[in-house]
Amino acid sequence: MIKINFNPEIDKEKTTRILREIRADKMSGFLDLPKKMYGSKELQRVKKIAEGIRAQSDVLVCIGIGGSYLGHRAIIEALRPQLSKNSGIRDFLGLPEHEKKEVQIIYAGNSLSRRELDYALRQVGDRDFSINVISKSGMTLEPAVAFKEFKRKLIEKYGEAEAVKRIYATTDANFGRLHDEAVAKGYTCFTVPNNVGGRYSVLSEVSLLPLVVAGVDVDELLSGAAQVLKSPEAAVKYAWMRYILGKRGYDTEVFASFEPSTAYFNEWVKQLFGESEGKKKQGILPTSVIYSTDLHSLGQFMQDGRRNLFETIVDFPTDDLNAKVVEAVRIAHIEGRIPVLDLAVPTFNERGFGELIMFFELACAVSAKLFGVNPFDQPGVEAYKKVLHQKINGF
Amino acid sequence: MIKINFNPEIDKEKTTRILREIRADKMSGFLDLPKKMYGSKELQRVKKIAEGIRAQSDVLVCIGIGGSYLGHRAIIEALRPQLSKNSGIRDFLGLPEHEKKEVQIIYAGNSLSRRELDYALRQVGDRDFSINVISKSGMTLEPAVAFKEFKRKLIEKYGEAEAVKRIYATTDANFGRLHDEAVAKGYTCFTVPNNVGGRYSVLSEVSLLPLVVAGVDVDELLSGAAQVLKSPEAAVKYAWMRYILGKRGYDTEVFASFEPSTAYFNEWVKQLFGESEGKKKQGILPTSVIYSTDLHSLGQFMQDGRRNLFETIVDFPTDDLNAKVVEAVRIAHIEGRIPVLDLAVPTFNERGFGELIMFFELACAVSAKLFGVNPFDQPGVEAYKKVLHQKINGF
Repeated sequence: MIKINFNPEIDKEKTTRILREIRADKMSGFLDLPKKMYGSKELQRVKKIAEGIRAQSDVLVCIGIGGSYLGHRAIIEALRPQLSKNSGIRDFLGLPEHEKKEVQIIYAGNSLSRRELDYALRQVGDRDFSINVISKSGMTLEPAVAFKEFKRKLIEKYGEAEAVKRIYATTDANFGRLHDEAVAKGYTCFTVPNNVGGRYSVLSEVSLLPLVVAGVDVDELLSGAAQVLKSPEAAVKYAWMRYILGKRGYDTEVFASFEPSTAYFNEWVKQLFGESEGKKKQGILPTSVIYSTDLHSLGQFMQDGRRNLFETIVDFPTDDLNAKVVEAVRIAHIEGRIPVLDLAVPTFNERGFGELIMFFELACAVSAKLFGVNPFDQPGVEAYKKVLHQKINGF
Repeated sequence: MIKINFNPEIDKEKTTRILREIRADKMSGFLDLPKKMYGSKELQRVKKIAEGIRAQSDVLVCIGIGGSYLGHRAIIEALRPQLSKNSGIRDFLGLPEHEKKEVQIIYAGNSLSRRELDYALRQVGDRDFSINVISKSGMTLEPAVAFKEFKRKLIEKYGEAEAVKRIYATTDANFGRLHDEAVAKGYTCFTVPNNVGGRYSVLSEVSLLPLVVAGVDVDELLSGAAQVLKSPEAAVKYAWMRYILGKRGYDTEVFASFEPSTAYFNEWVKQLFGESEGKKKQGILPTSVIYSTDLHSLGQFMQDGRRNLFETIVDFPTDDLNAKVVEAVRIAHIEGRIPVLDLAVPTFNERGFGELIMFFELACAVSAKLFGVNPFDQPGVEAYKKVLHQKINGF
């Protein structure tokens, strides 16, 4: 279990009320995912189809934006130093022949950069590939543009009939442009659940397919997440600690890790908190650092700069030398009057990351409620989408 | 030239005084680098030696931390979508045979993670490789640990005599542990200049060797930087604009880019400003986003969250569709009352990045001076190093 080094005063009555409200919210489906998915028929199907993708492809192109790709990418990148065999991570292309085959995961459709899209197409080159397009509506511009290009490449390479067998659509179960196309063409489909928001969807079919293709042990991931739900006290305390610090003027949280491969996991955490809390002029601004290198950069700012920061160290088991660095940073920052919250994760593997995911999701929902905002909507994102729609369609 | 969309009121007398002070500072050597290096004998030597490394190696392991690696890594990653041939970027390993050979650059020694170090060693595998170890003193713990491991691997593979020919040490010209070892063993040496701080060193020999090995056109990079020094007005205005916003309570700057490959460049910018300005409780906290994906995450925070943020868009030339996104974001954020500073970079290539580097370096020095702090020291980093030294050596 994740261990914490703080023990804030908690309003128990308010906590109970908040947990009840979260449970009653129609978007609280993320709390059911560990139990629902573990050992399920859906998961068996995911594994079987992933096996087929691994057999037929050297590359899986994952097309999605925001919550549709950050979660699985975060886990795959984090486990990069461990997944030496059956890994989907491009870094392993450098490994000796006998340690393959790995299926490379290439991400597309998370920006509108033409450079990046051309680059992704070139990266696939003439290798065998499949597509996993992940979009609830199928209407979001960035993935729609990328899907069109990769679909064309697929059809050129394999012809229309074979291409259909290499497209995996993760989308709404009943409605939407991508759903309709998938049904009409006969793509293999996975479901984006209706009661789970994008940024809370990492343990659903949204992420499970690419995770299994990349060689991640998703049973362990789900088990780790389930563990947190059995004793949610630490996550609740963390939510209260953030809230108390926020009210005292600590308006910026620095997520710190000493493992470079977790940089993308930090991105996922920042999305979770930023999109959930950043409303009605509320919430704590989430930022992140990777130590040691950032001690030689933002470390300066932490030590001598403004005093509105607090630091949350995501602390994995490590060797003696690195442990000394973690301790030195902790002491230096506390001496510099930075509040340091420590989350000690028991293992650096699928189980540990499963715990972390549910820990942060639950804490985020509670924290947003404490700040008086809805953890599950995103009105600001809609504002930008509206302006973009006007720009492109003129109405 | 970089174009800006703001025109703050400037105290000309103060500006003149500040520029004179910067010039008089013994650490202002970064201002001379474009002219000093372009067409120099030193640069010719770098190019010749880089050619040798390319001939003898499939991998160049760059060992360094902070300013010793962020700069060149930032440029190499940013140009990733363009450097299809002769590129040192690992992502190109997926390209068809005829578009190689590229030398892969692998980074090590920027953390104390044992996982990451083992992973880097495994990535090199049994391929031919050389080492570029970059450390002014040779005493910094993280690169020292990594250097020891890679040196052992090198000697095991090639024997002592041949290994020496594959070690390139970038260090102090006269002193220090690495300098002494290099002289004793006979490594090929490059110089970390005495009058340039780590975070301002990207146009010196610190970065030039890996850049040339990776296929970057460093002549264009230096030309772009020189351009800024000929007309520094925009950089000075940017420094003043930040300072004025900072004094009005905008204490957090969000560097925004619409090109995913520039994520590491953002890291370099954050180091530059964070380490230069974050002193005496002063300075603006630097953070970064990559759009579109972060519109689905921190975009929410920008739109509806706290009102102490301003946004600096690094805006590269792009196609129509992406341009519409840039415009939509600008409108949405201005409507959300976020001040948006626009830096329009003329080209997405070495010249454009050369301009950006000198633009930010000059602006950062001026800005730190406006906030009343020394742009060139880093007392907070030393505080952490001191605690770490105590932890490890017990005194």
